[in-house]
Formats: sequence, structure tokens, C-alpha cells
Amino acid sequence: MTEATPKKGHRIALDCMGGDMGPSEAVAAAALAFKDGIIGPDDTLVLVGHEDNLRMLASDHRALKNSRVLFRQAASIVASDDAPMAVLKSKRDSSMVIALEMLKAGEVDAVVSTGNTKALVAAGTIKVRPMEGAERPALAAIMPRREGHFIMLDVGANPEATPAQLLHNAVLGSIYAQSALGIARPRVGLLTVGTEEGKGGPRINRTHALLKAMGDKINYVGPVEGFDVFGDACDVVVTDGFTGNIILKTLEGLVYMVRDMVGSKVKSNPVYLAGGIAMFPLLRDLKGKLKPERYGGAPLLGLTGLVMKAHGSSNRQGIASAIRLGLEALGHGAGHRMLTSLAEANAVVAATPEEA
Amino acid sequence: MTEATPKKGHRIALDCMGGDMGPSEAVAAAALAFKDGIIGPDDTLVLVGHEDNLRMLASDHRALKNSRVLFRQAASIVASDDAPMAVLKSKRDSSMVIALEMLKAGEVDAVVSTGNTKALVAAGTIKVRPMEGAERPALAAIMPRREGHFIMLDVGANPEATPAQLLHNAVLGSIYAQSALGIARPRVGLLTVGTEEGKGGPRINRTHALLKAMGDKINYVGPVEGFDVFGDACDVVVTDGFTGNIILKTLEGLVYMVRDMVGSKVKSNPVYLAGGIAMFPLLRDLKGKLKPERYGGAPLLGLTGLVMKAHGSSNRQGIASAIRLGLEALGHGAGHRMLTSLAEANAVVAATPEEA
Repeated sequence: MTEATPKKGHRIALDCMGGDMGPSEAVAAAALAFKDGIIGPDDTLVLVGHEDNLRMLASDHRALKNSRVLFRQAASIVASDDAPMAVLKSKRDSSMVIALEMLKAGEVDAVVSTGNTKALVAAGTIKVRPMEGAERPALAAIMPRREGHFIMLDVGANPEATPAQLLHNAVLGSIYAQSALGIARPRVGLLTVGTEEGKGGPRINRTHALLKAMGDKINYVGPVEGFDVFGDACDVVVTDGFTGNIILKTLEGLVYMVRDMVGSKVKSNPVYLAGGIAMFPLLRDLKGKLKPERYGGAPLLGLTGLVMKAHGSSNRQGIASAIRLGLEALGHGAGHRMLTSLAEANAVVAATPEEA
Repeated sequence: MTEATPKKGHRIALDCMGGDMGPSEAVAAAALAFKDGIIGPDDTLVLVGHEDNLRMLASDHRALKNSRVLFRQAASIVASDDAPMAVLKSKRDSSMVIALEMLKAGEVDAVVSTGNTKALVAAGTIKVRPMEGAERPALAAIMPRREGHFIMLDVGANPEATPAQLLHNAVLGSIYAQSALGIARPRVGLLTVGTEEGKGGPRINRTHALLKAMGDKINYVGPVEGFDVFGDACDVVVTDGFTGNIILKTLEGLVYMVRDMVGSKVKSNPVYLAGGIAMFPLLRDLKGKLKPERYGGAPLLGLTGLVMKAHGSSNRQGIASAIRLGLEALGHGAGHRMLTSLAEANAVVAATPEEA
């Protein structure tokens, strides 16, 4: 019997400075990730930020007293309202940019950050080069539906995606759904405004033709409408970063509006108040279910290294969950399968005439 | 003192056959519109559908026994799943197409229909010609926000709008907001993915430049993100028909999901059940507030005649409300102001260099 090659662990850089709850919550998340076994015996975690501060915070957690925890100094912090391009110019010493530089240099396999989404997408796209066969990365969000969850991508990395780039989103999202949702053969739908052929314009029609031409290389179920996404139509909803970002933000806005309306109604009327107290567990459940990125992280797929965005308001559980999702996405040879799928997709693009 | 020209009333054709609740509800809506004074003393209403049936139904309503109620025979009905192009080819004798033909011929000033949205948009666009200065119509939906309502357009008529067409949407939506929301100087926002200049691609940038170049001819407040629309950022949200339709459908899907989740949670647990009973009025209020097109109608703006879409599930109040919105949109010289604004907009398009 041949001895199996020892499994090489994964190395993750955690940008500890960008979250709303500050570095103490990020360090607590790191401790939780070790305690819960999210970070395996072969994996290492690099805490990036004000090193003295991070070392002091880490000393409070027994789970972090081990050689798999490393530190990297970064002098500045990306603020939540920093303009993306300004970050690349004037905050090269920030924890976000330094973590991305480590990924670019191959020192780590993934970056997890709670920082400013737009800055992370811009800096991630520019600093970390696209995977072979990919042109632009796509941000993939996990969204709730009646039963379980689905993945929507792109939610904001590439606003004006071409048909080939939408096809890339489909294959990358399909592989990510395998690790993130545990679905062996995820159903892929193309978001559009009408399910008859010819609706949605030439860009959607060309993408539809490419997806059909993929044959059994992808489990394409056809065009889906906005109405279908919360049903059981598909597991991966493919769209461009303009539409996807607007949907995500609009849904968030609606959820907050409902929460505020429930809150103000409950306070305004004694009947509602009595009901509200009894309903509290239900409202809490609903709020949890409807919170975007509840699962903790949205990866920027299609780069040579994995960049994982965690919600800015994430607590330790949320950040630990983003670390888990990142490690799962790195595992099972996902990177290798993504390269294979992108090559298949590009062969289909080349072989499918424009007026298919 | 010169005698004022007697006010010429408006003529509305009501497609009575397309709604989920059938012609009896449409006829009851007509009666309600007369009873409530929505239809004024100078206005006339034409009921379009199976004439014998409509006359019989009308005979049950005293409010319809007057000379301002007319009937027009139509032999067939557009079904909710008829493909738009098939309707134009094979259902030329349907109540929807006949009502649109009356509008095209100048026999009426507006059509109100509860029929299949896609068929109505396609048939309305093709049968009724664009207003001078407009290229494509836009469907304008009234949406709820924390306080009051806002208008979003286009929600599905023109999926791939050019910058000039987005500018047309802005001026038409602005005038419609005056009549539908009663706001003298509606704030107009351009929906995009980031509020810095340069985000959202060249199409959004060009539209932004055109809107700025309009000066005080429009109350443009700048780019808005999905997150802002339920706040108080603006009264008119301008977008293309692809994005707008997907947002509208996705929000509807979410609202139905929340309703189902609340329903199933309430049934599954006695604590929730007790709370649910007490909360019932609140849930009903929320459902009403979140129901798209609660106001009853979405006009297809930018055509020579007004086509007003009412929700397929509208009851008599909903249909009467669509008739009211249609008459309000026709009043106050809105058509004339739309022509003036479109001419101003086109002058700005011609005068604004591509790289403004």
C-alpha cells in the first residue's frame, strides 16, 4: 500500500481591522474557529492588523496559543466609506491591502475580510490576478429561500458582464454551491425578465445559448425570473454584477423596512405589543433567515486565490463562518475543478457561433 | 369676460376580461368608479368584452344605468399564460387588443387592463405609437417605502434602455409622480451600484451626465443604490426595464416568502399561534403595504395614449383605483407637459457631448 501524500493544509489571512465590531471580535472569531475545529490541524491562520494590539487580544484566548497562529503588521485601516480607488493609492499599508498582497505572493491561500465591500472587490480584482480561463471575478452571495438557501452571483464585482463572463459565473457558482450548500449537482438558472426565447435582449440570448451548449457539463435548468428565485427553481442564480448588486441591496433595504415597520407598529398599539411579545421568537427567526450573508461570507470567485467577504457587522460567529466557508471552498480540489470547468466553458464559447 | 371652453372629458376603455376575478369584478369596479365620482360628469367609460355578458352584469348596478357607459364587443380573451407575440397574431379579436385598437384610433384616451402584463406591454408598444420625442414606453410602478410611496420605472417595457431612453424615463416618471403622488417637484434618482462617479459603467455615466445637464428642468438628486430606495432618497427611481422588472419580481417573491413563513411558523407552534392572532391586524397591514401595485395601476408612459396595467388579482377597489390613476395622469395637461419635457430632454441629449 502506498503511503498517501500528507495533506497540505490551507493558509488563511484574516483582515482583523475592517469590521464594525473591531479587532477584538475578529480575534475572538479566530479563537472560535480553532476551538470549533473549523481550522484543521494542517491549516494556519495569519492575523493581519496592528500587531501589538492583536497579540495582546490573542493572549486572552487559550485557543490561540499555538504555532498555527501567525501575525502580520499593518499600520492603517480601510474605513467603511473609503473610495475603492483611493484605498489602492493611499492605503497600501492597510490590513486589507497587506492581506491581499500576501495572497498575491502565495504566502496564503485565502483572505477573509469584514472590510468595505467595494474596496475589497476593487483591491482583490486588481491585486490578485484572475484564474487561468477567467476574465473577471464574481462575488457570490448565499441567500435564503423557503427551504434552505441558494447562491446568487455576481452581486457586484463585474457590473457589465459579457455572455462568456456570465458563463464563467455559472460554472464557478456551480462548483461553489457544491461546497457551500452541499449539493452534488446544483441546478443553474439564468436570471432574466421573461422565460420565452428572445426576452431579455441579445446578451441574455447569447448566454442562454452558451449554457445550453454546455450539455451535461452543467445542470442548466434555463431562464428564471425574479419571482422564481425564492422558490425551488434552481440553486445557482446567474446574473451580472449590476443587477445582482441592486437586487441584494434592494432586498436588504426591504428587510430593514419590514423590521422597522414591525417595530414601530408593535410600539404604537397595545394589541400589537401583546402580540409582539408572543411573536418575538418568530420575528427573531425571520430576521435571521432574511439577513443577507447570514452564512457569514461571500467569496470573490475566479481569482488565483480566494478572497472571502464577511459582512461588516459580523460578530465572531459570522466571521468564523466565513473562515469555514473559505476553507470548504478551498477543499475538495475546488480550485482544480474550477480551472477544468473554465477551460470547458471557453471551448464552448469558441465552438458556439454568435447566432446559435 | 370670455366664456371658458367647456372641459372635454376623458374616455377610458376598460378591458373587462383579463383579470383573475373575471368580468363581474370589472363591471363592479366600473360601478364603483361612477359611484365614487372617480369618473367625472364629462368622462365616458367603454366596457370591452363579451357584450351580452357585460350588459347583463351591468344591469345589476344602478350606477351604470347612464349614457356615459358604453359597450364594445370582443370575442376572445387573452389568457394569463399567452405568449405576447402570439396575442398580436392570433388574438386580434381579444378584449385587450380591441381596447388598444380603440386607443390607437383615437376613440378613447386611455385603456385600463388587468390582463397579462407582458402581452399588454408588447401589444401596447406595437399598437399605440410612441409620443413625439419618445422612443420606447416605460412601465411605472408605485412602490411602498417607510413613509409613503415612490415610483420606479421602467419595470419591464424596455429591457435594454439607452442613456437617452433612461433620460426620457426620468422626465416621464417625474411628471407622473406629480399626479400619482401629488409631489410638486419630485426628486429623481438614477439607480446604480455605487455612488462614486465611474461606477456602473459607461451607460450609467452617460445617463448621469445627461441628467445633470438638464439643470433645473428636473429635480435630479444623483445616483442612488438599491439600499436607498426604501428610505427617503428620492421619489422617482430611474432604471432600465431589465433591472426594474427583476427588482419588482424579486421583491414580490420575498414578500410572498415572508407571508408563507409567517403562516407556517404561526401554525407550527402554540406560542406563535397566540401571538399570530394578536398580530393579525399588523400582518394584514404589512401585507397591504408591501403588495406591489397596491395603488391599483402601473401606466405604460411615453405612448400617444395612456395604457394602464392593473394587477391581475385586482378586486373592484384595485381596478377602480387604476381608473382613478389613469384619469389623474390624463388630467392637468400632463400629456402636453410630457411632450415639452421630452423635447427639452432631446435638446440636452443633442447638446451634451458623449464624454461630458
